[in-house]
Amino acid sequence: MIVVMKPFATKEQIENVERRLTSLGFKTHPIYGEVKTVIGAIGDKSRVDASSLSHMPGVEAIVPILKPYKLVGRELKKEPSIIEVGKGVAFGGKELVVIAGPCAIEGEEQLYKVAKAVKKSGAKILRGGAFKPRTSPYSFRGLEEEGLKLLHQVKQDLDLLVITEVVDTRDVELVSRYSDILQIGARNMQNFRLLSECGKTSKPVLLKRGLSSTIEEWLMAAEYIMNEGNESVILCERGIRTFETATRNTMDINAVAVVKELSHLPIIADPSHGTGNWKYVSAAARAFVAAGADGLIIEVHPDPQNAASDGPQSLKPEVFDELMQALKPIAQAVGRSI
Amino acid sequence: MIVVMKPFATKEQIENVERRLTSLGFKTHPIYGEVKTVIGAIGDKSRVDASSLSHMPGVEAIVPILKPYKLVGRELKKEPSIIEVGKGVAFGGKELVVIAGPCAIEGEEQLYKVAKAVKKSGAKILRGGAFKPRTSPYSFRGLEEEGLKLLHQVKQDLDLLVITEVVDTRDVELVSRYSDILQIGARNMQNFRLLSECGKTSKPVLLKRGLSSTIEEWLMAAEYIMNEGNESVILCERGIRTFETATRNTMDINAVAVVKELSHLPIIADPSHGTGNWKYVSAAARAFVAAGADGLIIEVHPDPQNAASDGPQSLKPEVFDELMQALKPIAQAVGRSI
Amino acid sequence: MIVVMKPFATKEQIENVERRLTSLGFKTHPIYGEVKTVIGAIGDKSRVDASSLSHMPGVEAIVPILKPYKLVGRELKKEPSIIEVGKGVAFGGKELVVIAGPCAIEGEEQLYKVAKAVKKSGAKILRGGAFKPRTSPYSFRGLEEEGLKLLHQVKQDLDLLVITEVVDTRDVELVSRYSDILQIGARNMQNFRLLSECGKTSKPVLLKRGLSSTIEEWLMAAEYIMNEGNESVILCERGIRTFETATRNTMDINAVAVVKELSHLPIIADPSHGTGNWKYVSAAARAFVAAGADGLIIEVHPDPQNAASDGPQSLKPEVFDELMQALKPIAQAVGRSI
Amino acid sequence: MIVVMKPFATKEQIENVERRLTSLGFKTHPIYGEVKTVIGAIGDKSRVDASSLSHMPGVEAIVPILKPYKLVGRELKKEPSIIEVGKGVAFGGKELVVIAGPCAIEGEEQLYKVAKAVKKSGAKILRGGAFKPRTSPYSFRGLEEEGLKLLHQVKQDLDLLVITEVVDTRDVELVSRYSDILQIGARNMQNFRLLSECGKTSKPVLLKRGLSSTIEEWLMAAEYIMNEGNESVILCERGIRTFETATRNTMDINAVAVVKELSHLPIIADPSHGTGNWKYVSAAARAFVAAGADGLIIEVHPDPQNAASDGPQSLKPEVFDELMQALKPIAQAVGRSI
Repeated sequence: MIVVMKPFATKEQIENVERRLTSLGFKTHPIYGEVKTVIGAIGDKSRVDASSLSHMPGVEAIVPILKPYKLVGRELKKEPSIIEVGKGVAFGGKELVVIAGPCAIEGEEQLYKVAKAVKKSGAKILRGGAFKPRTSPYSFRGLEEEGLKLLHQVKQDLDLLVITEVVDTRDVELVSRYSDILQIGARNMQNFRLLSECGKTSKPVLLKRGLSSTIEEWLMAAEYIMNEGNESVILCERGIRTFETATRNTMDINAVAVVKELSHLPIIADPSHGTGNWKYVSAAARAFVAAGADGLIIEVHPDPQNAASDGPQSLKPEVFDELMQALKPIAQAVGRSI
Repeated sequence: MIVVMKPFATKEQIENVERRLTSLGFKTHPIYGEVKTVIGAIGDKSRVDASSLSHMPGVEAIVPILKPYKLVGRELKKEPSIIEVGKGVAFGGKELVVIAGPCAIEGEEQLYKVAKAVKKSGAKILRGGAFKPRTSPYSFRGLEEEGLKLLHQVKQDLDLLVITEVVDTRDVELVSRYSDILQIGARNMQNFRLLSECGKTSKPVLLKRGLSSTIEEWLMAAEYIMNEGNESVILCERGIRTFETATRNTMDINAVAVVKELSHLPIIADPSHGTGNWKYVSAAARAFVAAGADGLIIEVHPDPQNAASDGPQSLKPEVFDELMQALKPIAQAVGRSI
Repeated sequence: MIVVMKPFATKEQIENVERRLTSLGFKTHPIYGEVKTVIGAIGDKSRVDASSLSHMPGVEAIVPILKPYKLVGRELKKEPSIIEVGKGVAFGGKELVVIAGPCAIEGEEQLYKVAKAVKKSGAKILRGGAFKPRTSPYSFRGLEEEGLKLLHQVKQDLDLLVITEVVDTRDVELVSRYSDILQIGARNMQNFRLLSECGKTSKPVLLKRGLSSTIEEWLMAAEYIMNEGNESVILCERGIRTFETATRNTMDINAVAVVKELSHLPIIADPSHGTGNWKYVSAAARAFVAAGADGLIIEVHPDPQNAASDGPQSLKPEVFDELMQALKPIAQAVGRSI
Repeated sequence: MIVVMKPFATKEQIENVERRLTSLGFKTHPIYGEVKTVIGAIGDKSRVDASSLSHMPGVEAIVPILKPYKLVGRELKKEPSIIEVGKGVAFGGKELVVIAGPCAIEGEEQLYKVAKAVKKSGAKILRGGAFKPRTSPYSFRGLEEEGLKLLHQVKQDLDLLVITEVVDTRDVELVSRYSDILQIGARNMQNFRLLSECGKTSKPVLLKRGLSSTIEEWLMAAEYIMNEGNESVILCERGIRTFETATRNTMDINAVAVVKELSHLPIIADPSHGTGNWKYVSAAARAFVAAGADGLIIEVHPDPQNAASDGPQSLKPEVFDELMQALKPIAQAVGRSI
């Protein structure tokens, strides 16, 4: 930590800050510049939030030096993590993993139809929401446990892996019974209790980035899960909120390279939510594969015009199939397969 | 709802859209412009998400006309709501209500000290976090039930109302036992299960705006609570996330006038989180009172340098006292008292 | 400047960075932490951009310590600047200054009507655009020199000060001939040539904040003007661009306190552009006065329904008059007059 | 245009709005819903800004239906434009065009070195700034005309096309004499006079997107240029400003597909400014090619550690060469060549 003193801070102010740092267990190293003095502080933080020193007379700013995360960082674990999710499918290896399926599970026929289609096109994991977080209380909120059962049935019948979202700490055990992967949605990225609860299970967790979360906050959310002992975290960029209204969200394509530099965890992309418009999904999917993402999660619906939720951003099965073909040479160009 | 057709959409495309709208229960009113045709659609939406029509050939855009909320809106309830929270204290009336206290409850001495001070300065409600949502799993996360008990004890001893945050659906019942008001934090504004659970209680709910939530989404979150039967919702602007880094958040001063126009619910402001820096808290507090806010929630700590959380944005009791004095003539200038 | 080395950077890498810093004229002060080494670098930067050191092996980040501005900062000039603009009117003193008038000058009748009205209500300076920067090339772009002449005529007749925007380096001389203050609009805040050209005149400059400019960038833009020898800069907060769409912009109320801390320059607010909606203008105007702003600039139009530009955010003269009355006690509450 | 009336607007209010629309030359088509009435208005706008109708009693909102641009839109010109820039090089065709070179021209040796290197790697156009818009007045602002002459000399010697930025209306003629393409930077995207001035030349214009400009505003800026008769506009996505600080900007990968849908103009990407960090440039470059961009502009410097500007985001020639090789199979995968 570096404490930056104001220009012309007095000798007494500087000494007070040094004394305070020492009492908190830091070793101090002042550097006297022409205009400002800065004090390097080495050592672990105590329970006291060190940023509180900004209250002391003469202090201008506190600059942290160490990354706030440990378990998710590259510093302790240099090699990329490969997260096995079952049936030989793994995120972070040479082979890209595509998750596909409807936004919400609407019924047996719909789910079978789309599951068969996406499996045929090469998706390894079926997605389908049973508990839907919706902006409006009047929107369709999912089939709940009935949806989970349908998902499980399709999983068994078609020999697919499945993923579904968990939105309440009280449902973690229930969802874990039916789903191969627990999905934490963007709006729950800083629902810290839910993170901890999922961290206590043995299920891999797909952690979506919050709408307005920095990459650092996102990694800290993953740290919550890992801190409970669950090392199987897959990050998912799904677009952030900006001033642009031409698309539902702005996809942060830079996030792939940044996450790969800072963390060993795999990262995939959700171009359906990231664009909000099926017409832009394929371009975004191609881009994320080219940027080095480890997989994709894509909404596919057999009849998007009649979807109960997210119809505008869902691909028809035939468009999804074309996309899967288009991704192959791009994956190959970056040394991956799909 | 207005369906905007693309320029030169064919007659057949227009008719298909009309047919589809009719089958969904809408009455259609096409208007043929020189370049584009638009179709007015009157009637209630079915379970199908009408935005899915954007998939139909020839459709350019769907423009909703009705507000998505009902219970929170001014359209059905014209007069401002006055939310009684106990002991004659109410939000939304002529008198402004100030909530003050530490970010986190750290112990008995700290809590009594600050409670006495803020009461003396005119605060009507004591705040204090027992369950703290923290970005890092390594930060102090609150005294939990022990904190709730301390809060309750101070409430009894000093004859104050109290408010504390609830972060987990499983804790709603517990927190309701100790607290006069349930606080839902910014990070949980779209934790829809938590909203519903708080909506099932009889406790007033203070609903903070999410970091990147639009005012409409915020009102929809309040709608979730009201939809469960709980009409006592107090909105709290606490700053939104923007590109500016000189302050922790950017306070949306316009939100007061916008909310007052769209909704009958009271709105208060949290200048502590909204600025993140105690030096800027007073200016922001004055501004929100002048803009017409119904109250304030302010972090006060007897010794901010040693706070376990949010020290940099906490006021010392004497600064809080000065602020309370400074607010009086401003409140008066806008026809209120404090 | 602090150079933060990566964890486990080698001794050789650290020495290389030190050597490089020395060759650029810095004195170096390494601090060896348990995980990371940081190197304090004291001295002036050469023409080489020091951030380029981030290319060196083992370097993680460069943290600047000194503020990038000098002339606008509080460090060299502690007392607030009072900017005289003529006829005894000054920004930054005890008396608040209100600028009012139409967005665009549309004709003689319109301008006289509004000028008389705003003068009567207490505005000291008349605004009116002759060169209008418009998003669309098909919108009304102002009466140009004819507008300037009208403005000058009204100024003489009604004994008012006037302000108008300059949008092109080629017009600075022309506009200076007619206007008491040069206004630089939000979209030109980083038109560095225009800043320099205005800095070469002896006219006070009203510098609006850019839509997505940080406060630091805004101060750097003022530094450009002052660096040419013109010390009369008035800052104007006019709202920044965020994700919120309920208002045209989000007004950064915190900016007043931040600017007052960092700079000696006066700051006013433009609630017309900051809200984009006349219904919200008064609340924002009250808020900025309460927060400590040194004045306001407000759009007033005798017939907003027929305005050639910005009608939705223009006040009718009678609403403006009510606002001026409402501001008096608030100004008084914060130790100012209006 | 659709005028949305408030719920329960009176018959008189509705009739007044209709009368006003008629007087402005619109034909009106009211649709009476259960809650709200909307009025479709067909016809061209007069000089009066139609949004001013929002002042009329009973009006809730004005919804525009027609796109504000004409010349840049797909509606009048369906086929993509191919912009020839000389020597058989064209943007928007099957072959991708890569522009490369230093941020700023620093001297003869530097420019020749980098020009030879990027040409060898396959770049068709050399970039180099002679007039540099810099945030600080104390930073290196370019060699100005001397730089232009160097650029022209290298162009002749090495048989390359060149591009450089123009930052002042007074320099358009000068820069046009030396450069094959005029570059308008992000900070000048809404410098409407500069747009018009460049529109009057016969030189192709590379128009960077503003830091906080929507895609619609960007297209409107292109409309300014085209409206003066210059049809050779190339759009360039260079990242937008968001809350994320891990990178200098957030690249809007969705913008490629959106622009391709709305406009016939070619679009390229600038991953150097879009990331601000050479380590992330290659991933972003690959992504934009995969998304369908028509080219790239990349900063390359022979010695980034000693660059006078933008060193941290400049590639070394050998890294640029690797990138060019890596782009080939991706371009091929999307049906293009490089």
